[in-house]
Amino acid sequence: MSSAPLFRKLALIGFGLIGGSIARGAKALGLAGEIVATARSPQTRARVQELGIVDRVVETNAEAVDGADLVILCIPVGACGPVAQEIAPHLAPGAIVSDVGSVKGAVLKAMAPYLPESVHFVPAHPVAGTENSGPDSGFAELFVNRWCILTPPEGANADAVDKLGAFWRGLGANVEVMTADHHDLVLAVTSHLPHLIAYTIVSTAEELEGVTQSEVLKFSAGGFRDFTRIAASDPTMWRDVFLTNKDAVLEMLGEFQEDLSKLTRAIRRGDGDALFEHFTRTRAIRRGIVQIGQDEAAADFGRRPKQLGAKAE
Amino acid sequence: MSSAPLFRKLALIGFGLIGGSIARGAKALGLAGEIVATARSPQTRARVQELGIVDRVVETNAEAVDGADLVILCIPVGACGPVAQEIAPHLAPGAIVSDVGSVKGAVLKAMAPYLPESVHFVPAHPVAGTENSGPDSGFAELFVNRWCILTPPEGANADAVDKLGAFWRGLGANVEVMTADHHDLVLAVTSHLPHLIAYTIVSTAEELEGVTQSEVLKFSAGGFRDFTRIAASDPTMWRDVFLTNKDAVLEMLGEFQEDLSKLTRAIRRGDGDALFEHFTRTRAIRRGIVQIGQDEAAADFGRRPKQLGAKAE
Repeated sequence: MSSAPLFRKLALIGFGLIGGSIARGAKALGLAGEIVATARSPQTRARVQELGIVDRVVETNAEAVDGADLVILCIPVGACGPVAQEIAPHLAPGAIVSDVGSVKGAVLKAMAPYLPESVHFVPAHPVAGTENSGPDSGFAELFVNRWCILTPPEGANADAVDKLGAFWRGLGANVEVMTADHHDLVLAVTSHLPHLIAYTIVSTAEELEGVTQSEVLKFSAGGFRDFTRIAASDPTMWRDVFLTNKDAVLEMLGEFQEDLSKLTRAIRRGDGDALFEHFTRTRAIRRGIVQIGQDEAAADFGRRPKQLGAKAE
Repeated sequence: MSSAPLFRKLALIGFGLIGGSIARGAKALGLAGEIVATARSPQTRARVQELGIVDRVVETNAEAVDGADLVILCIPVGACGPVAQEIAPHLAPGAIVSDVGSVKGAVLKAMAPYLPESVHFVPAHPVAGTENSGPDSGFAELFVNRWCILTPPEGANADAVDKLGAFWRGLGANVEVMTADHHDLVLAVTSHLPHLIAYTIVSTAEELEGVTQSEVLKFSAGGFRDFTRIAASDPTMWRDVFLTNKDAVLEMLGEFQEDLSKLTRAIRRGDGDALFEHFTRTRAIRRGIVQIGQDEAAADFGRRPKQLGAKAE
């Protein structure tokens, strides 16, 4: 831990949940000699300055990447192309350029054409997050025991990939390498489809006739509230995810629709055996996720039981 | 608290998550002079005996209800009719007979014909739970600050309704009274539809080509894992819910399908504004649920951040 940091200068472009968590983690663990951050809005830059998490806050992307040996774009997927174009002339030769976007094929296509041959482009996606966003929402432990997926383009420099992997392992993550296309298919089912479904059901509940909004909120503990967490995620980020991973998302949506039709038919026909068999199978998947440490075994997500007899009524 | 208990003898038929939580809460708070429990399986009865939570474990439903002034059926909805028929001749005059089922119209129809005029039938539904089941899964605080909905039939005795309400308030719950039909509509959207969707998406993820099961588990922190909790709920209970609240569930499913089509179309057409507007609205609903105390504000459901730098790798 007291040896030389992995990188001399880390430049973070964008300071939301992910950028802020990288900064806090890298600082706490000494992964970079200097951490420089910037953000598009003056309010965010001022707040980062105030928080005192990074060594320097600068006003422009060009200034941020100047002399940096690791540059990470922590911005919505749709903004990656224009920012790549903007920073390209200012990148130091040999620098590793990466991002944290939830879609990788589109990022690769948007950024690669602008980046000079002298830098190493290794897109990355830390599969971690919360429903909060903004400069205050990050925390150093966000990536611990989560996965970070690297999707280097064909012919990428192996040392650069290894070094970026070491950085993410330093933040506590497990690292996996795959193609951008495979990443986009896997994440379409483990992340993008669940978000789309959550966004849908939350709005369905909002607009019903015969059931008031206040009833939906009051009786949400019956299951609904679990969906609302991810439906509260950052709107800009998720708009870009669905615009840029359209094909894989539509494919998964097709599969989901078929399965939903099957269950709907079982309900309509009163086929109790089919329902029971189905519900028994899904229980096993939950167990698998808890077993490999991607969720806690605590009942009800560990929501703390309130104290008995503490109520005034 | 040291005054006379609300009920002389509480009989619990069934001892899963809900029955076991009522027993523990009623015991801790002295809400009943004596708590007698029974369950269909000898294993469950033996385990309840071992746990030492109730005053007496008996072998038959008839024995359990004998002389009880409060009888609560804590069993799947589909079993309520036959059990009502079985206990009817053994109920004490003036006893309150209730249940905890997630569907109320069907319970009313199944039980009412068997119950004698001399007892007060007040169906109830505590909207609380975890994904665990069985005699060990209950805890006394389960109902604190959750809602319990009473659905007394027309002409029900007002004192009996009040007294059952007092019992649930004693356990820490808020109490609301509504018709069985309205209950079934409200719960179809806040509980039954979310469970159906979660059951569907978890099985969709299980059967995909091109994405392995192990990848689904590994990268579940991207959103998928939130769905798996409720898809791990008790299969028998949920089979019965969908069989007995079929009409309301199919209606809500229709609404959901329409909304999903709208979002799908926006994705297909690349309509970023429609997506952004939609995702911004759903964020507000999450805030509403946290504000009224039906969920915690803690990010990521309060899943505890792991310790930084603790990993061996």
